[in-house]
Amino acid sequence: MHPIRVGVNGYGVIGKRVADAVLAQPDMHLVGIADIAADWRIKSAALRLPVFAATDAARQAMQDGGVHVRGSLEEMLADCEVIVDTTPKHIAAGNIERYRAAGVKVVLQGGESHATTGHSFVAQANYASAVGRDSTRVVSCNTTSIVRVLGALDDAGLLGRARGVLIRRATDPWESHLGGIMNTMVPEPTIPSHQGPDAQTVLPDLDVVTIAAKGAHTQTHTHFWTLQLTRQASREDVLAALRAAPRIAFVRMSDGLVALNSTIELMRDLGRPRGDMWEVAVWEDLVTVTGDEAYLTYQVYNEAIVVPETIDAIRALTARVPDAHASIRLTDESLGIRQDFLLPAQPHGHHG
Amino acid sequence: MHPIRVGVNGYGVIGKRVADAVLAQPDMHLVGIADIAADWRIKSAALRLPVFAATDAARQAMQDGGVHVRGSLEEMLADCEVIVDTTPKHIAAGNIERYRAAGVKVVLQGGESHATTGHSFVAQANYASAVGRDSTRVVSCNTTSIVRVLGALDDAGLLGRARGVLIRRATDPWESHLGGIMNTMVPEPTIPSHQGPDAQTVLPDLDVVTIAAKGAHTQTHTHFWTLQLTRQASREDVLAALRAAPRIAFVRMSDGLVALNSTIELMRDLGRPRGDMWEVAVWEDLVTVTGDEAYLTYQVYNEAIVVPETIDAIRALTARVPDAHASIRLTDESLGIRQDFLLPAQPHGHHG
Amino acid sequence: MHPIRVGVNGYGVIGKRVADAVLAQPDMHLVGIADIAADWRIKSAALRLPVFAATDAARQAMQDGGVHVRGSLEEMLADCEVIVDTTPKHIAAGNIERYRAAGVKVVLQGGESHATTGHSFVAQANYASAVGRDSTRVVSCNTTSIVRVLGALDDAGLLGRARGVLIRRATDPWESHLGGIMNTMVPEPTIPSHQGPDAQTVLPDLDVVTIAAKGAHTQTHTHFWTLQLTRQASREDVLAALRAAPRIAFVRMSDGLVALNSTIELMRDLGRPRGDMWEVAVWEDLVTVTGDEAYLTYQVYNEAIVVPETIDAIRALTARVPDAHASIRLTDESLGIRQDFLLPAQPHGHHG
Amino acid sequence: MHPIRVGVNGYGVIGKRVADAVLAQPDMHLVGIADIAADWRIKSAALRLPVFAATDAARQAMQDGGVHVRGSLEEMLADCEVIVDTTPKHIAAGNIERYRAAGVKVVLQGGESHATTGHSFVAQANYASAVGRDSTRVVSCNTTSIVRVLGALDDAGLLGRARGVLIRRATDPWESHLGGIMNTMVPEPTIPSHQGPDAQTVLPDLDVVTIAAKGAHTQTHTHFWTLQLTRQASREDVLAALRAAPRIAFVRMSDGLVALNSTIELMRDLGRPRGDMWEVAVWEDLVTVTGDEAYLTYQVYNEAIVVPETIDAIRALTARVPDAHASIRLTDESLGIRQDFLLPAQPHGHHG
Repeated sequence: MHPIRVGVNGYGVIGKRVADAVLAQPDMHLVGIADIAADWRIKSAALRLPVFAATDAARQAMQDGGVHVRGSLEEMLADCEVIVDTTPKHIAAGNIERYRAAGVKVVLQGGESHATTGHSFVAQANYASAVGRDSTRVVSCNTTSIVRVLGALDDAGLLGRARGVLIRRATDPWESHLGGIMNTMVPEPTIPSHQGPDAQTVLPDLDVVTIAAKGAHTQTHTHFWTLQLTRQASREDVLAALRAAPRIAFVRMSDGLVALNSTIELMRDLGRPRGDMWEVAVWEDLVTVTGDEAYLTYQVYNEAIVVPETIDAIRALTARVPDAHASIRLTDESLGIRQDFLLPAQPHGHHG
Repeated sequence: MHPIRVGVNGYGVIGKRVADAVLAQPDMHLVGIADIAADWRIKSAALRLPVFAATDAARQAMQDGGVHVRGSLEEMLADCEVIVDTTPKHIAAGNIERYRAAGVKVVLQGGESHATTGHSFVAQANYASAVGRDSTRVVSCNTTSIVRVLGALDDAGLLGRARGVLIRRATDPWESHLGGIMNTMVPEPTIPSHQGPDAQTVLPDLDVVTIAAKGAHTQTHTHFWTLQLTRQASREDVLAALRAAPRIAFVRMSDGLVALNSTIELMRDLGRPRGDMWEVAVWEDLVTVTGDEAYLTYQVYNEAIVVPETIDAIRALTARVPDAHASIRLTDESLGIRQDFLLPAQPHGHHG
Repeated sequence: MHPIRVGVNGYGVIGKRVADAVLAQPDMHLVGIADIAADWRIKSAALRLPVFAATDAARQAMQDGGVHVRGSLEEMLADCEVIVDTTPKHIAAGNIERYRAAGVKVVLQGGESHATTGHSFVAQANYASAVGRDSTRVVSCNTTSIVRVLGALDDAGLLGRARGVLIRRATDPWESHLGGIMNTMVPEPTIPSHQGPDAQTVLPDLDVVTIAAKGAHTQTHTHFWTLQLTRQASREDVLAALRAAPRIAFVRMSDGLVALNSTIELMRDLGRPRGDMWEVAVWEDLVTVTGDEAYLTYQVYNEAIVVPETIDAIRALTARVPDAHASIRLTDESLGIRQDFLLPAQPHGHHG
Repeated sequence: MHPIRVGVNGYGVIGKRVADAVLAQPDMHLVGIADIAADWRIKSAALRLPVFAATDAARQAMQDGGVHVRGSLEEMLADCEVIVDTTPKHIAAGNIERYRAAGVKVVLQGGESHATTGHSFVAQANYASAVGRDSTRVVSCNTTSIVRVLGALDDAGLLGRARGVLIRRATDPWESHLGGIMNTMVPEPTIPSHQGPDAQTVLPDLDVVTIAAKGAHTQTHTHFWTLQLTRQASREDVLAALRAAPRIAFVRMSDGLVALNSTIELMRDLGRPRGDMWEVAVWEDLVTVTGDEAYLTYQVYNEAIVVPETIDAIRALTARVPDAHASIRLTDESLGIRQDFLLPAQPHGHHG
């Protein structure tokens, strides 16, 4: 079977990672990436990837900067089966018509609204319902982590009510010289924050409320959950439910992984590209269960967590791999996703 | 009646503020402050306060630095009726014998254990039980805020179960060149964190669980609460309960007070000494009530919040002012404590 | 003699401090402050100051927010002899016509260009040339500090060539939830940076080059200088030159003042309003002289350092106090400006 | 020829990078790494590297944690020809006897004093003098960058007097939850700082003075230089001198590389292991020359810059590659070191 031909529009935090992940898939071919920037981001991309210009002005600027431009966005689309749009928040909606005109299937990201595609995607939760669709939206990093973790507990019949406090990183490292926050925290101006309802676009029956704030750091979100369980449960019950789900990995304070930066450094030590962590990192020794209440703390590497979901979404739209587990396994093996960072990699089959 | 003669041992973040607050009380006299440091902290104190040396070595170092030393700690104690010990965590316990020997009453701070004095103090909750005692412990900044806020809801018969996430400042500004955290968060290594049980030393019947972490900022803690109420309630019910308690002030996102640093700047603009905020600052427009659940977010100025409690604790021990409300009113008026920072000061009598 | 009637247009970082400083002068009267904001900044100002609205829209918004508005900017101007414009960078130039129409004298701030007024002001350097003028510009915080320090060395005949590296705070605390930098530094995109030429608007003969960058902190700039002296000199020669100038204060590492935050905390301990430091804080024990080279490091409290200069500029324009030293002395005594923060205040007369 | 057998004692920031770089050399074999830690750092190392225990206690702790320990430090040394000691500052000196006893050659790092080995090393400056020695010391990250850059200008006959301000990162990312600085800067307590004399251990004739301070960020140092040239020179003269030296790469503000974090992100985008930058990144468009003065700003990726020097030092000690350029070329090609990050890689031969 010929590989799925994929283009990526928007070469930012997510787009560049999606491009790399597409390159790593045995069943995909990266047609190219398109953007409107013409600076170091594109110049470095052009050293290794086919670059297209999303606008005429961008094309000129890229060429003026010495970048070899392969063509326009439309020319890239003409060669694609699926386009992944990772342009900034709310820009993608305006691109939909261009994609429809080109007859390509579309994967959007979590900055767009659910209504734009009518389908929101997290692989472990609803891959099947995306199979063969024209488009879907991979939900945001925070929402993806919520669906993975709360979904796992729900699958195990344990989840009653979930109340979470989400402390978000303030800005991404690459743009932390602009628009950051310094020596402060910034609470979201409304409670509940939008992540709860957003998770319900994937799992409508979740009873979830989130309170969010920005913290004065640039990498990874942290979620603190108080969970009302459906019954008195043991700590092992909760751990087993989490172990049964993909893309959740345990870390332990007792291993010295005691802060966000510890885990981030571990990813660098593991040789991950860009130091990425695609897994939700749940602190195993902070999982606490008392009666019918559980407390969970986990870390979300916001720059990368949606990348495997995006790869699965590409496959689902093409209907080339109808089975969720097959796609998840393919993605996870190609990227090197793990269940425990400090144990030798395990065969994948033990997932649910 | 002659004023209460007070000494302060430990001229750090809390001690220097307590000294200033004692100076502001109409019924107290500051005998002096004692410390073991001999650097800028003591040199600047000596420009305006009587300085005593807590050890012989400190006395020598102070004198070498040109500080006029009034005497030893024992000499200070000999002139005191009450000593406030604000030495670093767990040091005070070792000082107790010196205080007993001097026959002075003792106010400890929240770094010490409840067992050291057998009594833990928050003015609005248990002033009466401290009246005439030999010693008490003013609980920590986080715990003080919890008792003020949850206590207020409990007094109104509204509080069922309280689950809170506490994001603490990482270090205080004066020592932020040492031992800080950078671009990360550090979760407490156990759940529940100690603040819940600590609040129960004052209000034993609270059903409270806290999860804590350090954030990458130097000023003020933030608490995010999910509250199970005892009944379906209105938002106004919750606000009214908070308004009835002292030392809680509302701030509003709609006034542009949208982040920790906004409130901190407001305190500077209000002319507060050192920019202190003694009140718990509850975001009024983040108070959200849905059915029998309420969500609360507030800010705790950790450097100053225990100062009014410490002043009340001094009065309670001496039994000079047997009534809690009378002491609270005296303290609050002398410091300029408010219920709303952006409205003209109101007459105090409307407190419960 | 009736007091000088002063208005302040722009109630931001500088404006609010200028308003307070005007209130502290025995020979000035604050007519009021004007602004276009209507949030907590103005609501708190209105608790203690006469507030005017700089635009009709602002007036409406202020009144909607419950602020008692005294009138329009024009109404305020009608009552003023001098207006201090502290509006954001480059806004003041557009206000000049309004001020001229009202017949008031004008003090601008360093964000404006020298050309707008044709005169740039630092009290110790060129007070006399501002006496009786219609307008002047108080230079920026960095430039003010440069003129004070290099000017002092120049007055002593010591200064040859000055090469400085200026590490600026990234943003002010009150707006540090917006537009800050995180975990990075941002060099100015050109060398030399503008501060050298700006200092030459006051002292045209300075041989000065500056290189600037933003650091990841919110309070105070730091300047590191390499100075070519006119001759072999002793460390004492340099110290004596600095001691002879006003508004320079020594701090010492040996007193434990080892970092920016140490000095900032000291200002809080000294009871300074808003923790302000009007003086340039030169690290005395970092003053190093080797042959004909000297190295200097000092700290500039950017929020406050131009306040005394602004007060002097007001006086100079009115020609009420023709003598620079008389005005400086009046300003410094009213604010409590010092030459050494850890020694008892000295009589002022020993200044040059 | 059999490969050089190398061991690394100390698996920290430098040690883990040296181990990876040794693995990348065609003429070297990594015997293993030794450490005293037993936490995530060693557990992750053990997934891919032979791990030895530097002490018996460490061996026990490692084994208790499930780490497969290959043996003791002595057992590792018995199999090594060269040991690279990257233990914390001043520990290595105490290890020297163990290394001598084992008959291995020793490469120390810049935390140790020059006297410990009697030879300090920067490849481009003095490779030849290290050939065949028993030991050498690779100088620190700051010093390495100074020797590379000032050495290049000196080689071109341009360098007179160099005066630099060095703003250091406060702590490394992996330990930024401990001992960091927050919202402040910390000047070194003496001027000159030690880096100038340290550079003279390699290039004794440099006329260099440095002033240093810590900034509130965790990655990369920045150096700001004012250089007195030996003659009136053009900007192109300076650029040419820098281009002629290895391990200096130009970056440009005009490419959008405007802050430390921009360059750091570029390294991630280039697929560098751990995002490392081995080159000194000189801002080309900040190179400014006026008459006989030049101003330079560059960025030093402190976690990685000494790695190529360490590899060269290993080769020099063994005398296997007597020629500096040959070793530098081998190292640079194996790591992928570049002269310009945004241009296609050039053939190496154009180096001096």
